[in-house]
Amino acid sequence: MGWVDRDGQAAHFAAGKFVRPALCLWAAEACGGTVDAALPVAAGIEWIHNFTLIHDDIQDGDVQRRNRDTVWAVWGNAQGINAGDALHALAFRSLSDDGEHPDRALRAIRIIADAVLVVVEGQSLDLRLEGKPGTSVRTYLRMIAAKTAALIGASLESGAVMAGASPRITDGLRRAGLALGMAFQMRDDWLGTWGDSAATGKSSSGDLGRCKLTYPIVAGYASMNHAQRERVGALFHDGAGDAHAVRALLEAAGGPQATAGAPHHYARKAKATVQALGLAPRFTDEFTEVADYVANRSR
Amino acid sequence: MGWVDRDGQAAHFAAGKFVRPALCLWAAEACGGTVDAALPVAAGIEWIHNFTLIHDDIQDGDVQRRNRDTVWAVWGNAQGINAGDALHALAFRSLSDDGEHPDRALRAIRIIADAVLVVVEGQSLDLRLEGKPGTSVRTYLRMIAAKTAALIGASLESGAVMAGASPRITDGLRRAGLALGMAFQMRDDWLGTWGDSAATGKSSSGDLGRCKLTYPIVAGYASMNHAQRERVGALFHDGAGDAHAVRALLEAAGGPQATAGAPHHYARKAKATVQALGLAPRFTDEFTEVADYVANRSR
Repeated sequence: MGWVDRDGQAAHFAAGKFVRPALCLWAAEACGGTVDAALPVAAGIEWIHNFTLIHDDIQDGDVQRRNRDTVWAVWGNAQGINAGDALHALAFRSLSDDGEHPDRALRAIRIIADAVLVVVEGQSLDLRLEGKPGTSVRTYLRMIAAKTAALIGASLESGAVMAGASPRITDGLRRAGLALGMAFQMRDDWLGTWGDSAATGKSSSGDLGRCKLTYPIVAGYASMNHAQRERVGALFHDGAGDAHAVRALLEAAGGPQATAGAPHHYARKAKATVQALGLAPRFTDEFTEVADYVANRSR
Repeated sequence: MGWVDRDGQAAHFAAGKFVRPALCLWAAEACGGTVDAALPVAAGIEWIHNFTLIHDDIQDGDVQRRNRDTVWAVWGNAQGINAGDALHALAFRSLSDDGEHPDRALRAIRIIADAVLVVVEGQSLDLRLEGKPGTSVRTYLRMIAAKTAALIGASLESGAVMAGASPRITDGLRRAGLALGMAFQMRDDWLGTWGDSAATGKSSSGDLGRCKLTYPIVAGYASMNHAQRERVGALFHDGAGDAHAVRALLEAAGGPQATAGAPHHYARKAKATVQALGLAPRFTDEFTEVADYVANRSR
């Protein structure tokens, strides 16, 4: 769980942001349910998210996350795979907790298992698109919808399901979560390129250095002239980019300003979707706050 | 799913033995339930098993299984991790299938998620015991109880749960499955050391070459004199053993004969446990047949 450091001593690092479980519990309450009934689902979702991070760090070779060494960097690839697998199973153990409504719990498991399948498809696409800066924005959006937005949509949907919400509400919250997830990932990509690595806890040369397909890359490339594209293509060609040179090219193309606004488009869509559901004002306000945080956050 | 070869052509390779789903369906029927009600659970268990094999092959660096290239050997480690993760999620998607008894399905998910946690713990122990031939038989038994027997126990238990069996029956079948699983892994270890690699589909130098802790090693070492132990220890020392030399030492110690009988001890225990449950004779006979196959099989 990351509760101890590499020497087994209690760790006092900042944990994750807990965006997904918070959204799940918010949805349960907004739909008239209790936090207690949704808690095993919220915990399961956070473990799912952490399992994907542990495996993602192995796949990308990332050695730092949340300002500390990644699991595989301490224990090796083989035990890192085990750690992710254990969290994955633990998530479904939590999701199957005995409660008052086995039918709802079973439906939440279906929603989350389906989302994990989509997340893995997104991870697979993410790996295949590495080093391909000329990929269309449309394909980029498909990739982040899968790798990030699906689980955020499932967080809201499963919270609503645990509260016994109507199909109109569960479907609306799922769609709001998908839009919020797009905003989340686009902001993540922006922070990964121009953010303060001390605040994000990740290296700011990571994504660029590994030639990952991010929003700054895909949007920057689309706005470049032929000569600039050739240069980015050459820097990406060997699969280990010069992060500094790529960032300079993106900055020359006006990237930091041009790409900072994109998350807001999706955050607005998420807010409008929730506003149309007619929840109690307190809950609509809270969602607005979260959506604004997601699109503006600096960590 | 392995339905196509590396070029995308339909594959006509022998699939696995389907021991776990067959046991799950057998338990459901033996407890008066239907195959239909247990089928999503049986399929889920087979996918769980296959996800563990895909990740295990990455961890062990095995390039051959079922007489064909392993997933990571074709697609690389990163996409191999994804393939295992997808099967893991697909398993829980199948287990959460909408049926007549959501409470039973939820209980089956708990049983299987718990088993996966134990399996991963066993895999972790398995990696840590590599290259340590002097490990006690007791620790070896704890390792295989976790990595192999737990899921076979869960296969029988969850099949019984889907049929609505009593606690006495579900518990008895779980215990029978644990004993059968011990027999299964000990036979697996024997085949991995002295079996025909064309029949097993795995390299016969694999386990020995990687200095894995198997029953022939742990039992052979226990029966050796000091000088022989020193030689095995030296061969295991650098983590890449000389399979031929280790096998010769084990054969000199009478290993093939001395270790072939061990699975029968556990198979007998499994059969006695099932016999005491008072199932219909047809089902008791079928289990006897399966237990004898497990302890005697050559693939």
